[in-house]
Amino acid sequence: MLAQPSIQIETPTQAATRIKFLVQPTSTAWIDLALSNMEEILLDHSHCECKAASAALNLMFRYPSSQQLVKMLTAIAKEELEHFEQVNGWLEQRGVPLAPLNAPPYGGKLKALVRRNEPDRMLDLLLVSGLIEARSHERLGLLAEHCPEAELAAFYRGLMASEARHYGAYWLLADAYFEREQMTRRLEELAAAESEILSTLHPEPRIHS
Amino acid sequence: MLAQPSIQIETPTQAATRIKFLVQPTSTAWIDLALSNMEEILLDHSHCECKAASAALNLMFRYPSSQQLVKMLTAIAKEELEHFEQVNGWLEQRGVPLAPLNAPPYGGKLKALVRRNEPDRMLDLLLVSGLIEARSHERLGLLAEHCPEAELAAFYRGLMASEARHYGAYWLLADAYFEREQMTRRLEELAAAESEILSTLHPEPRIHS
Repeated sequence: MLAQPSIQIETPTQAATRIKFLVQPTSTAWIDLALSNMEEILLDHSHCECKAASAALNLMFRYPSSQQLVKMLTAIAKEELEHFEQVNGWLEQRGVPLAPLNAPPYGGKLKALVRRNEPDRMLDLLLVSGLIEARSHERLGLLAEHCPEAELAAFYRGLMASEARHYGAYWLLADAYFEREQMTRRLEELAAAESEILSTLHPEPRIHS
Repeated sequence: MLAQPSIQIETPTQAATRIKFLVQPTSTAWIDLALSNMEEILLDHSHCECKAASAALNLMFRYPSSQQLVKMLTAIAKEELEHFEQVNGWLEQRGVPLAPLNAPPYGGKLKALVRRNEPDRMLDLLLVSGLIEARSHERLGLLAEHCPEAELAAFYRGLMASEARHYGAYWLLADAYFEREQMTRRLEELAAAESEILSTLHPEPRIHS
């Protein structure tokens, strides 16, 4: 039985920094898997940044009339591409060639939870993107804390502020386009599902194993 | 009968500025259609920038191991998003709301020419993207030259250098991954087809009408 998520939504300006929504924190087993395979994790991180930029663009194509959404997601997509370049710089420095990588089931399972009819679809897409960003933020923070290479740990610490802004932006958008109660109820359901998906550690070292 | 394209490929560093490949220049009928409908053209331009960023990302997903491609297209995608923001700023300033817009047949017809098997597919995708960027560059240049609003004309002039870099990048990539002769021959075919597609003016005001 999963614990209930503790969701405290503040006024919009506070929301980005204070929302608590990840039902279960990441296990130490994930940290061990990641730290033992840092080059594969870096490569997966590179893919994650590019996929995050693409996900933001896809939302913009789906809702081209939603001014606030387009504005905030353009800024996010640009930052994801900045991070993508930075992670690729780390890979190059270590002589790790860019390469395709099997994705863990995480993204596909979350996508399957997105309802098909509007406006539910829009709400779910925003919340699922927010949850993925929030989990990324948590896990990159764990790398920042536990990575024994000082420079790489510093790089991860440097990403924290913008990663927090990204998931904050998705909550703010959900809150802007939907009723607070409807959003909170659906976020609780999706947040519980997100932790459930991660409760079995995927054996390959990935950001979302 | 279309004229043969005059393709002069120089050394890589010169290629971006000197390639001549658009078989037919844009007609004055397009300029008239565009200048009489500048707000719709601006809105379409906004969509074009977002689609160009997305096309660059899609190429990166398709060829994730191609280091040079990934590096150059990341830079392009970032710039397209910058331009997207700038065009949206012009729309906002004029009180034109963001909105979906029917695409002209141009992109779909060019996409249909892309061969299905690798490595032909990669060559065609690079050349088609290069041709689209080259035509955009030509037409934004015409807006820069003919738009009667001085500030807007100056904005379009400001885009010229990076737009030229974009199509130059696609030629450089095609030249890096393929034999010069193979690339030149296919570019001639696709360039002829591109002009043929535009030889009938699409009645809706679009960048690629």
